[in-house]
Parts: sequence; structure tokens; C-alpha cells
Amino acid sequence: MERRVQAKSKKPAESHTEMTEIVLPQHTNALGTVFGGVVMSWVDIAAATCALRHCNRSVVTASIDAMHFLAPIKLGWVVNLKASVNFTATSSCEVGVKVIAENPITEEYFHTASAFVTLVALDSHGKPAAIPKIDPQTDEEKRRYGDGEKRRQHRIATRKALQNRRTHP
Amino acid sequence: MERRVQAKSKKPAESHTEMTEIVLPQHTNALGTVFGGVVMSWVDIAAATCALRHCNRSVVTASIDAMHFLAPIKLGWVVNLKASVNFTATSSCEVGVKVIAENPITEEYFHTASAFVTLVALDSHGKPAAIPKIDPQTDEEKRRYGDGEKRRQHRIATRKALQNRRTHP
Amino acid sequence: MERRVQAKSKKPAESHTEMTEIVLPQHTNALGTVFGGVVMSWVDIAAATCALRHCNRSVVTASIDAMHFLAPIKLGWVVNLKASVNFTATSSCEVGVKVIAENPITEEYFHTASAFVTLVALDSHGKPAAIPKIDPQTDEEKRRYGDGEKRRQHRIATRKALQNRRTHP
Amino acid sequence: MERRVQAKSKKPAESHTEMTEIVLPQHTNALGTVFGGVVMSWVDIAAATCALRHCNRSVVTASIDAMHFLAPIKLGWVVNLKASVNFTATSSCEVGVKVIAENPITEEYFHTASAFVTLVALDSHGKPAAIPKIDPQTDEEKRRYGDGEKRRQHRIATRKALQNRRTHP
Amino acid sequence: MERRVQAKSKKPAESHTEMTEIVLPQHTNALGTVFGGVVMSWVDIAAATCALRHCNRSVVTASIDAMHFLAPIKLGWVVNLKASVNFTATSSCEVGVKVIAENPITEEYFHTASAFVTLVALDSHGKPAAIPKIDPQTDEEKRRYGDGEKRRQHRIATRKALQNRRTHP
Amino acid sequence: MERRVQAKSKKPAESHTEMTEIVLPQHTNALGTVFGGVVMSWVDIAAATCALRHCNRSVVTASIDAMHFLAPIKLGWVVNLKASVNFTATSSCEVGVKVIAENPITEEYFHTASAFVTLVALDSHGKPAAIPKIDPQTDEEKRRYGDGEKRRQHRIATRKALQNRRTHP
Repeated sequence: MERRVQAKSKKPAESHTEMTEIVLPQHTNALGTVFGGVVMSWVDIAAATCALRHCNRSVVTASIDAMHFLAPIKLGWVVNLKASVNFTATSSCEVGVKVIAENPITEEYFHTASAFVTLVALDSHGKPAAIPKIDPQTDEEKRRYGDGEKRRQHRIATRKALQNRRTHP
Repeated sequence: MERRVQAKSKKPAESHTEMTEIVLPQHTNALGTVFGGVVMSWVDIAAATCALRHCNRSVVTASIDAMHFLAPIKLGWVVNLKASVNFTATSSCEVGVKVIAENPITEEYFHTASAFVTLVALDSHGKPAAIPKIDPQTDEEKRRYGDGEKRRQHRIATRKALQNRRTHP
Repeated sequence: MERRVQAKSKKPAESHTEMTEIVLPQHTNALGTVFGGVVMSWVDIAAATCALRHCNRSVVTASIDAMHFLAPIKLGWVVNLKASVNFTATSSCEVGVKVIAENPITEEYFHTASAFVTLVALDSHGKPAAIPKIDPQTDEEKRRYGDGEKRRQHRIATRKALQNRRTHP
Repeated sequence: MERRVQAKSKKPAESHTEMTEIVLPQHTNALGTVFGGVVMSWVDIAAATCALRHCNRSVVTASIDAMHFLAPIKLGWVVNLKASVNFTATSSCEVGVKVIAENPITEEYFHTASAFVTLVALDSHGKPAAIPKIDPQTDEEKRRYGDGEKRRQHRIATRKALQNRRTHP
Repeated sequence: MERRVQAKSKKPAESHTEMTEIVLPQHTNALGTVFGGVVMSWVDIAAATCALRHCNRSVVTASIDAMHFLAPIKLGWVVNLKASVNFTATSSCEVGVKVIAENPITEEYFHTASAFVTLVALDSHGKPAAIPKIDPQTDEEKRRYGDGEKRRQHRIATRKALQNRRTHP
Repeated sequence: MERRVQAKSKKPAESHTEMTEIVLPQHTNALGTVFGGVVMSWVDIAAATCALRHCNRSVVTASIDAMHFLAPIKLGWVVNLKASVNFTATSSCEVGVKVIAENPITEEYFHTASAFVTLVALDSHGKPAAIPKIDPQTDEEKRRYGDGEKRRQHRIATRKALQNRRTHP
């Protein structure tokens, strides 16, 4: 039996996460631009940090929606990631992550990619665990909540299809 | 003017790529399971290698379709990635990547995730460049070609919407 | 001759930088706590990003003042770094970095360390280059400016002593 | 007492391992070619994966025979490693690893290095444990089995000499 | 109750540590020079190794005095770090680290930085534990002992001020 | 035409290299012991540093003789590598590397492995370049010189055989 008193609900601002990286040689391919996979792994870290802060529990990534890389990011640039909880279900949440690349010499900014990451909170036995509800405050946050709810329906359907294909090969 | 003679078309088997990783402490989170972002970055490397082999040109990742992580991968396990070119457009290709996790002690196998990655080939000036057509041979390869073509229509629409949103903020 | 028009001065908020890290196995020692050197290298990246944003030029680290590690940081925790320009000289600036560790399960926060990093801006030949002045706005920013100016006098004296020792061994 | 039923013998194809890497900036020296040590560490991972799959037990590297690096591998190339079990003793096996470098732009292939790695299987107390016999099928596999057996005699002699030198310094 | 018999005192030479690194692409920024933070993290590892050897216990970094970077270190150079215990208190020690950069082509040497790192020894419960006294032998070692003792007074005062500020925010 | 005046010969002590590493989680496998491949990559770095110092030119690894791992190395231990030039030919040298693992809590030392690495010096066009002769001073150094010379004959024969097999497949 768990006695910990958890918050019933939290505002998006309480778990908002901002991450910054400088693009180093180890992040780039032979063209001097960042690998897509490196951006994805930064997105996953930002989303996990945000979900950790909202859930106060261990979290694992369940899915990531489609990502488009709209502009290349170059060696020496700064990459800024902003992550917020959009929507919560009983034991999972959707985190939206925005990736902005910044040429620090020219002060140009590029919206490089956006991502929606779904994470599941786990209890000490590794089973899904209840999390606080997200309580959107601003109009923008309410819009994101509604959009997140719709995306969730779509994801559940896709996931079921994938799991069925696995059990009946 | 470019004089290099390139193949007009290639079979999927000519660029098929297989990648294997052992899960080490540096790939895991505090729960001893692999980060989603680490899997994504392996997927991106496998897809890029496959596209490099098909295109014989530098390639960059343009997008990745939604990914679902169907089962956790643990420290000490083996991860196997298989990548093949499904579909080609003039200067881009869709690579399908299948991720299989393997507990080497029990010989259990888990289909952990699948991904569709779109990559663009670049010439020496960083502009999109023509690539060989993919020439599917087996029934399975022909099915994947058709599916890839449909997914491409969907991606083009999404990308346009994203780019419009960027120019009219 | 350089024609680029640079800002004459900037406010601290224009280059304020926030960085977030999750503590992974690769950051920890055999005790499961973060190495001091890992924190130092995060501090250096945060300071360099902040200075890049203020100077719009390449920057290198010239010195770091004494750092005290006031509390251990553990595997699975979140580390938050906040960096601001405190003071500027002709071609160098002092960046203050605050390191806050956060146990995301219990929502405890620990002020782990603070640091003052001095960075020099370089032109294309690697020579020190003029940078915008920092223009402190709030009382807190003005206090930091004054403190930074005093620390600078002390650093110049120390550096001269070190360089003399080098040339007359 | 251990109750697990293990295979008495296995074919080389059951544990065959293929690994692929793209050469990134972090793998190269100041000349833009891969460090010998990076290739060796890829060889060790490929061999360990192959041995894990054959033995279904934890394995550690006991020795590696001489390696010659026959051609440099450059930034942006693809490296392909193929590993197979050649020979088995009671609790150890010899894995052969072939390293092929591939310039993906020109489709040139280079046989860069070969290696024979000996690994020991361990039980839960860290003591050497029995493993399945390798059961070579093709003529090539049978030739490798015989060669592996001869190399083993040589290694045992060398190792004894090294250990004696240690105990009588 | 602990029965281990520890040395009452040790000479600096017994824990002297020498560390060497080649500067690889992953250590450098976009200018091809080493990040200050990378040097700091090498300094911390060298100091921790030296303190481990002196204390025969787990150690954690408590502080590092101001560091000045007197000359840039370039890709392909060799960095040599020498660490010695200067001074010991009941459960902590000061380690001095000297960083010398070496252009291996021209055989030029540059004294790049020096650092004083204070580390605390911990028992199995993570509490500070008694360590052997350092027993300086040469005149140089005795001078360092005296200097270390003075620096310690200064650090204790600074640390108290920092901790007070934390508890009365 | 090259005008640089190079030393005609050098003593082993002039390029002797000592490297120290603490075993961190990122170096270990699921058993908490160091991967063989990690040790090999440290050996290669130590040998390359030593050869760089002797040759004052860029160097690449041509071969490594057989290595036996005589004892496991554990998380939290210290690894010490000592490298010296044993023998020189016109443009290549043999470096001997000794790997000693050290449990810093118990002060036990283990001679874990030894290696002989052959490296080739390159000129600015990537062609083999003349290097200083090694001038052994002590009896031990003279013995190593003679042993290195014999090993070289053996390596040349092996390498030829490998290269012939490549050209006549």
C-alpha cells in the first residue's frame, strides 16, 4: 500500500523544461550538420525530464509522433529545446517538445522540429502508476490539451494494430 | 557538370543494412532500461547507412514517422536493427527499420519498434540530388513500395502545413 | 576591415541561458554520484552558450573562479543550470552560473554550486575582439555588475603572477 | 544446482553476428582516419555479441590474436563487421571477426582487418561455465574449426608463460 | 567496527598520479581548441585518482580553487596532467594538479593551467572518514604543505558563508 | 623539400608515456568489469602518444600483437598504462604497453595485459616518413630492442601473407 500523498493536479508551468546544447564535433556527420538521431535523443531527454517533473515517478517513453526536420543544424550552433506537458491520461502523459536552432554569430533562429512524446509513469514494480492530472491554464494550454486528447485516440488505435500483428505473426 | 555514371536503379538487397548493439550502462536510464532516444539514434544511423549505400551520396534525415516502443530493452541485451529502402522519389528515399531486442541468456526475441525514415541525398553544394530508383523484387518488397508511396503523400501534406505555419507565424 | 554592425550594448536577459541534464550512468562514479568534473564541464558549456549569445562571436574560457560542491547529486536526478552575463570588459565577460540539483521523485531542490566563468571573444584570426557592453537593468543585475568588476581586478592580478612565473621559471 | 536445459551443440549460423558503424568525428584522429583502438573495440563488441548468442551466458574476453590494419578507414565511411564462432572448448570459444570498410560514395570495399577473439563463459558466481559445442556444417566452417583448434594450443602455451612470469617476478 | 589497518601516514610520492590524453575531435569546440570544461573534467579525474591512492577509500570532490587557462590547447596535441597530495586534514585532502599541453610535432610545451582540488574520503555509509596524514619529504613538498594549509583556512571561511546563504535565503 | 631538422636518434626515456584511467560505468559491461575492447582502445591511445613523442609526426596504428587479459578489471579501479618505444625501423616503431590494474581500496596491483603496437609515421601527403632511431640505454632497453627486431620479422611475413590473400582472393 502506498501512503505517499501526491498532488491531484498540476499546471503545465510546474514541469516546463528548457534544455540547451552547443553543437560539438561529436554530434555531427561528415557534412558538419547534426544527425537526426542526435536531435531525437535530445528531444527524448527533454520530454523525460518534463514528465519526471510532472509525475514525480520513473517514466519510460512509449511513443513519439512523426518528426520533420525542417532545417539543418550546424557545428557551433546552439540548440534550444522547450518541453511542456500537453495532456495526461491515468498513467501516461503527452509532452510537446519544440526544437529551435540558433546561429549565435548572426542571431538567426530556426524552428527546426517539433515532437509529441508519450511517456508512461511506473511504480516500484515497473507497473504503470497513477499520475497527477494536467490542469491547463491559458487558452494556448487548453488548445494543446484538446489536440493531445485527439492524438491519443489515434495512437491507441495504432498501438493495438501493432501489438496484434506481433501476437499473430 | 557531373560525369559520374550512377546506377539507374538498384534492388533493396543491394543496400540492406544490419546493425547490432549490446546494451551498455551508458545507454540506460536509472531503471536499467534503454532510453527511447538511444533507440531513435540507432534507428537513424541504420537508416542513414542504408540510404548512403543506395544513393552513393551524402544523405540527411528529413523526417521519421511515428514510433511506438512496444517492450522495454534491458542492460546486457542485444539489439538488432534491420534497414531496407522501401520507396524512392527523385532525390529522397524511405527506409524501413525494424528493431528487435534479444535477451541472449534466454534466447527470447522481442519486436521492440519499427520506423520509417525519409532521407534526402545531397550534391556537393548541399542541394538535393537525383538518386537511383529502387527496384523491388519480391512480393513483400513490392507491398512495401506501395505502402511507402502512400505514406509519402501524407508526409508531403504534413510538411507543407508545418512550413506554412513557420512563414506566417 | 569588418563591416558587421554589432549591438553597442545588451541586457542580461538577452543572453540568459538555461540548461537541463538528467544524471545518467555515464555521469556517475562508483558511488552513484556525479563527478565534480562532470558538473564543471556542464558549467563551462552553459557559460560558453551564454557568452556566445551575448558576444555573437566565438568565445574561449579564460578562467573559472573557485567552485564549492555543497551537496552530492545522484543518478536519476535532474540538474538545472542558469547562466547570465554579470560584467563585461572590452573583449571579455564574466558569466555567473548557478547549479541546482533536483530529486524529481520528492521535488526536493538543492543549490549545489555556483561559478563565475570568464570568457574571451575572438575574431576570425583568433585575436581578442570587442564585444557589446552589458547593460544591467534590475537592482540584482546592478549588484552583480559591481561584484563582477571587483572580481575582475583580483583575477587580473592573479593571472599576471601566473604568467610571470611561467616566463621566469 | 542448475536446472536450465541448454543446447548440447549449435551451428555457427545460429550465432552469426553482423555489426555496422558509420565513421563519425568522434571515432577519428587529427588526420580524419579511424583510430586502431576504435576498430579493436568494435571487434570486441562484435565478438562478445556472437559469443553471448552461442553460449547464452555472460562472457568475458580472454585474449585477442594479432591484428593487422591493412588500410586506413576514413570519416564518413561505413564499417561492417562479421563475427562467427570458429571453435569451442569446454567453457571458452574462439570468434573470428572480419572488418570490411566501405566508401559508400564510390562503392569501394576494403578488407581492413581480421581478428580471432577468445571469450570465456561465466556462471552466476563468475566461474567458467560449460557451453554448447560448435557444430561446423560447411567445408569452410570445418576448416575454421581445425584452424581454431591449432591456434588454441598456441594460446594456452603463451598464456601459461605469461602467468608464470607474473608469479615469479 | 572497522578492523582494517590503515597506514598512519604516507609520502606524496606514494600517490603521485600522471595522466595523459590526446586531444580528439570530441574534446574540441568549433575552433578546434579544447573546451575549458574538458580540461576541468580531466583535472577532476586526475585529482580523484591521486586522492583514492592516498586515502584507500571512496572520495568525492568538495571544491576546486580558481583555474586560469593560460594558453589554448589544439586538436592532435598531447595533454599531460600531474597530480600530488599537498595537504591533509582529518578526512579531506588538497591535491595539486598541473596541466601541461604539448605540441608533439614541434616538441613545444605549454604550462596551460594549475588547479587545487579538495576531496573528502567517505566510509561505507557515505560519512567522512579518517585518512592517512601526508608526510612531505622534500623542501618543495614542505612548501606545498604550508601553502595548502593556508588555502584551507580560506576555503573553510568561504564554504561557511555559502552554506549560511543557503539556509537563510 | 623538407627543411625541418629532426633528431637523428632519441632515447626511450624521451618518449616514455604514462596514462591513468578510473574505471567508470561507461567502461563496463553488465557484469561490472571492463570490456576487453576498452582496454585495447586505451592501449592504442597510450602507444600512439608515445610514438607521436618519438617521431614528432602524425602516426597511425599498423598492427597490434596478440593480447591476453590475465585478470578482470572492476568498476571503481584505477588502470595504469606505461608505454615505451622498443624498436624502430625506417618509418615505423614498435611500442610496448604494460597495463596494470589497481584496486585503490586494498592497494592490490594486477598485471592485466601487455601489448606490442606497431605504428607508422606519415608525412603531410600521408606517405610513410623517416623517424629518429631509438637509442636503447639500459640493459633492459637493449633486450627489448632485440626482441622487437625479432617480432618485426615475424610481423612482416604475416602481413605479406595477409596482403597476398587479399589480392588473389
